[in-house]
Formats: sequence, structure tokens, C-alpha cells
Amino acid sequence: MNKVSVAFIGMGYRGKQLFRLLRNIPFFQILAVADPGMEPSELPDISCYNHGENSSLEMLEKHHPELVFIASPWQYHVQHALLCVEHGCHVALEVKGGLCLDEYAPLIESAERRGCHVYPLENTLFTRENLAVLNMVNEGLLGEIIFMRGGYRHDLRRLLLDDAGNIGNREKTESVWRGKYYLEENGDLYPTHGLAPLCMIAGINRKDRIKYLTSFSSKSAGMLQRIKELGGNTDVKVCMGDVIVTQLETEGGIIISLVHDTTLPRPRSLDFEIQGTKGIWQGDRRSIYIEGISPDEEWEDDRSYISNYNHFYWCRWGQEALKLDRHHSGMDYVMLKALEADLKNQILFPITLKDLALWTSITPWSKISIREKRTICLLD
Amino acid sequence: MNKVSVAFIGMGYRGKQLFRLLRNIPFFQILAVADPGMEPSELPDISCYNHGENSSLEMLEKHHPELVFIASPWQYHVQHALLCVEHGCHVALEVKGGLCLDEYAPLIESAERRGCHVYPLENTLFTRENLAVLNMVNEGLLGEIIFMRGGYRHDLRRLLLDDAGNIGNREKTESVWRGKYYLEENGDLYPTHGLAPLCMIAGINRKDRIKYLTSFSSKSAGMLQRIKELGGNTDVKVCMGDVIVTQLETEGGIIISLVHDTTLPRPRSLDFEIQGTKGIWQGDRRSIYIEGISPDEEWEDDRSYISNYNHFYWCRWGQEALKLDRHHSGMDYVMLKALEADLKNQILFPITLKDLALWTSITPWSKISIREKRTICLLD
Repeated sequence: MNKVSVAFIGMGYRGKQLFRLLRNIPFFQILAVADPGMEPSELPDISCYNHGENSSLEMLEKHHPELVFIASPWQYHVQHALLCVEHGCHVALEVKGGLCLDEYAPLIESAERRGCHVYPLENTLFTRENLAVLNMVNEGLLGEIIFMRGGYRHDLRRLLLDDAGNIGNREKTESVWRGKYYLEENGDLYPTHGLAPLCMIAGINRKDRIKYLTSFSSKSAGMLQRIKELGGNTDVKVCMGDVIVTQLETEGGIIISLVHDTTLPRPRSLDFEIQGTKGIWQGDRRSIYIEGISPDEEWEDDRSYISNYNHFYWCRWGQEALKLDRHHSGMDYVMLKALEADLKNQILFPITLKDLALWTSITPWSKISIREKRTICLLD
Repeated sequence: MNKVSVAFIGMGYRGKQLFRLLRNIPFFQILAVADPGMEPSELPDISCYNHGENSSLEMLEKHHPELVFIASPWQYHVQHALLCVEHGCHVALEVKGGLCLDEYAPLIESAERRGCHVYPLENTLFTRENLAVLNMVNEGLLGEIIFMRGGYRHDLRRLLLDDAGNIGNREKTESVWRGKYYLEENGDLYPTHGLAPLCMIAGINRKDRIKYLTSFSSKSAGMLQRIKELGGNTDVKVCMGDVIVTQLETEGGIIISLVHDTTLPRPRSLDFEIQGTKGIWQGDRRSIYIEGISPDEEWEDDRSYISNYNHFYWCRWGQEALKLDRHHSGMDYVMLKALEADLKNQILFPITLKDLALWTSITPWSKISIREKRTICLLD
């Protein structure tokens, strides 16, 4: 396979980012895009399908793409992916919070039956640091993994509220569909950015499994505070707690703390910490401590370690990644190159749709755990 | 009150530290010490009681001290404090993990009846940073508090194991009595260093109360790994998980994550994070972010904030504290000056025995929560 024909479903903020990067990789030949909010003039050299509900189907039937990128609003992901798979396409699927339990089951079944690949596009798996830490862990540098921390800590109030303090009202942005979850649900809405790298690093779904989940929610005050400042309607009832903490335990005895923190003012962070019997890495601080190597009880800057354990993805594609993908420090580009390498049967893509199904199941389970104030056994 | 006559029960590592500092504060007139392991020659100018069980009683009856410092092994704290209170002495009481539920109830009752003060010596309450953050929070700089994190993260394997890898075998150290908890119990053994400042800063036990507690334990592998390295007996069964995470929820909707992490290699840390509707402070990183003041989404160094919100304790005693108490960066000295100021009826000591009773109750509750895999309601 020298080239793959590509189509897009969903050309919002995220779709556009991926589109721009793909244009720099000759392997991906983009034929068409489908998005109801799109103007054909935006991409004059590509076929554009923007006539509502059936646009995607029309596009698939007309162009028969081999691979479809799906970056539509969350609630359409599974439906769009199923449509593609039923047309024999491979799928590159954007991540999200899970909307319901077992939502990917029909897609997994259908993809297996049709022999189609579904590649989850969780870009945080592909950062230089996370991949280097994966190497360190695989080579035993941190010892046996005991405790891990991660999360999605990103102030989204500007995205969720418009300038007058209304939720879900910023036109043509994810505000519109993402905002409503905050009014109706309480749980970890977006677990994958934090959890996926932790699972990859510790081999969860490979050599260990998540057994228990318990989630906790703080009160909800951050959004209301901002609504007040903007002069908006303070009668709005926000359901989502400002900070959701989810504790996970694996069969092997690893504890994972996962945080969802999107309605308070703060610099963004994925808050990574990987702690084992021989050392500990803290991603936010870019610090590492390895017993017997680091000076006694002193943090070291992690940069030389990250270089020494550089993943072959980054050895191969790192330079061009940093040049072409400044916006996301190369991780999106490396992810797309990994996708290319898998489609060419050169290097297996490191994660599967079943991984995504596990990660996103945190959302519905966390809502149940918070609502019913109980620990959930995920292996029942 | 110009002077207070002082005695000591317990002259181990911690007792000696306090003793040395008290000698620099003329208000405290040390008369006598009781410790079965002590040589009188160590302190030639002080009466020394080292004849076993009844030494403390003998000392109290002979010297009638007004204030007694108790730094004996944990299991004697309450017994020794009761003895002092029944002799009409005020007590300065070292902290520890709680050994059982309601262990301080008889002491609280007796101290109230006899009009004696019992001052908990939790020194982390008195660091310059924590007291400045208390001021910031009281003045509303961080907004409404939503989420807090803290913990005791301190590799104690060198203390708990001797050079041949035996637990609890370092002679004349706390190893002897502290080690056995690791063999027999699983819970947050030492909650106060992390929790006490969080409670002080958020006004818990004043304007809010801890309602729920759930604890989680990782596997136990750190101690065994070290025993193996030292060539010790690897048949030893360590009960305590390497990392214990305790989630607390307050009536007011604050979430607190507390960590106990003492058997893995790492630089020590209290891991503080205080997050509110207007900003966030991270103690380990010495970083702060205040909405509308800090550059957009950028951490600031906290040093100028700590200076601007310097607590009056530190304005008054900070310079001498840093000179006299290099070992603990001034916090022990400031604590002792706060004790002096309370005894002189000048400034109320900021915490009470009832606070200590709450903080230390985390230990037995966490053991129950881990053992029975359930959430505990502390207000039942």
C-alpha cells in the first residue's frame, strides 16, 4: 500500500487540525469531507458534503475511501464509525468521553466481522515524554509499577460559556454539544487524555486489568462564579462537579488516581505521575528520581532520561513532527505516522478499539459510582 | 506568666529536636526529662528519670512541671498525656497516626475537666508557605475552595529496615515500634502532616466538616524489593500497601485527596495543592495561578505571593526561626513560639486536641475502609 484514499466526517476544530497535518503526509490522499457546517469554498480542491444527515453516506458511496477520519461531535462517533465499517472502510476515530456503557460493542463486532481497523486517535499516547517513559518502564528503570496519576485538567469555561455567560452558546464550536453534558451529568466526562498513557505504560488490557472504580465529585462552583462575573443567568443549574476524582485499582494491585478538572481557572495539565519500586516520574514538573542513580532524595530534570529512552517513533519522525505540528508539540503528527506505518503493515498501531472502549467506559461508570456512592467492579 | 516550667516524656529523635529548640526560648524552663533509654550524662544540668514504667510519674510528682512535652513512642501518647493532665499539667503532644477510634476522647474529657491545655505539635501547620496560603484563602484570593491534595510521601525504608534487611531492628530508633505497624496493618498510618494544613486552610472543624472517607491501598512491593537488595529474609509478609490514597469529602462539597507513601524510593514531599474558584497553589512546585492576576494559563513562582501574605507569626519570629531551626526550616521554632504566645494569653494556639482527634482518626477509619472496601460516614 503506497497511498490510502481518505475522507473526513466532521470538520470542526479537531477535524481541521488533523486535515492540515495529513496534507503533509503524501501517503494520505484526501478525497472528500462531510460536515453540515462546512462551506465548500474553504477547501476548493476537495469534494465537500454538507447537506445534513445523509451527507456522510453519500460521500462514502461516491468516493469509496479506504480510510475515514471521524471527528464529528461525540454523540455521532459510533454511528459514523459503524457507517464507515459497514462500507468496508478503516476508521481513524477521535476520542471523547463515553456516552453509555458498551457503546463500542457493536462497532468492535462489526469491524472484526468486516476486517476493518478502527484506530483510536488518542494523541497523548504519542508525546515524546510518554513514549520514552513507556520504554523506561519496559526496561525496568522504574521497577514494578505501584501508583499512577493522571487527568484532564484544562479550564474549559471559555469554551463552554459565551461572552454573556450562557452555557453551550458559542456558535459553531463544540460548546454547543459539549456544554449540555455539564448541565445534565456528573462524572469524568473526558478520561482518555489522562488514562490512556497510564494504561499503555503499565500494560493495562495486556498484562493487567482494571478491577475496581470509585469516583468522587466536588461541588460545582467554578462555572457559576464565571457566569456571575460575565453577568449571565445565575439560575442555571450546573450538574457536573468542578473536580471529579476517580480511583482505579487493577487486579495486579496498582492504584490509579484520575482527575477531571475543567471548570476552574488553572494552567492546563495532564498531571502525570508514574511511581514504581525503583523510581518515580512526574510529567508536569518534568522531574524524575531513580534510586541509586539520582542523587539521594533529589529530583532530576527528566530531559536526559527522555533522550536516552527516546522511542523509535520519535527517533524516526521526531524532527519533522516538531516542525509540522507546533500546535500539539508533535504528538498528532507522530500519531498519524504511526497510523501510516500500521496501514503499510510495517509497525503495529500500539492501541486498539478495545482499549478505547475501556478508557471511555470510565465516564458512564464514574457517573454511576458518584450517583450511587459505591465502588464498581469492572470485571463482573 | 513570664516563665513556664517544663518537663519531657520521651527523648528520642523528636524529643531531642524540641529540647534543643526550647533551650533557645527563655520562657521555657526545662526541669526534667523521663525516658527509659536515656543516659543522665547526656544532659548533666537536667534531672533525668530513666528507671522504666514509673519514671514519668516520679518525675511529675517531684517537679510539678506546668507543661510537659510528650514525644514518647506513639502507643504511649494518650497514656502519658492523661498522666500529665491528671497531675494538672498542660501538655504539648507530638503527632502520630491514630491507633484506635476515639482514642483521644478520655484525654479531651479529662483536660476539659481539669482546665489543662493539650497542644498538638503538628509542625507542618507552621511552615511559612502554609500560613501564607491560609492568609490568601481567608482573604479570598483563591476563591471558594473546591479541591485539596496533600500527603506524607517520605521514603522510610532506611528507618524501618536495618542494614541486613530486617524490619524494626534498628536499635534505639523509632524503627523498633514503627516497623511493626507495617507488618500488621494496612491504612494511612501518618495522616496529620498532609491533612492538618489542609484542614486549617479550608476551615475544616470550624465552618465545614469531613463527611465521607474512602481509602484505597496499592499492593506492597517496595519494602520487599529493598529486603531482597539487602539480602534479608524475603519470607516476611508486609501488610501495608506502598501507596494508600484516602478520598475525603466535606459537607460543603470539598474533595480532599490524601496520600501515604513511605516504602518507595522518592524525594520527600507533602504534595500540597489547594484549588479554588479563583486560583490554585501547588506547594511542591512552589507555583501559583490566580485568575486575572497571573499571565493567562501560566504558573507563577509563588515566592512574591508568600511574602505578600506573610503570616504575622513569621513577621514576628521568622528571622530567628530560620537561624535557630535550620533542620525544619523554622516551622518547629514558630510552633514553639505560638505555644509560648498562647500560654502567655497573647495569641490563641490555632488548633486544638479535637482537631488532632479528627486528623488521626483517618488511620483507623482508613484501615476499616480498605479492609471492608466501603465508604465510611464520619458524621454518623
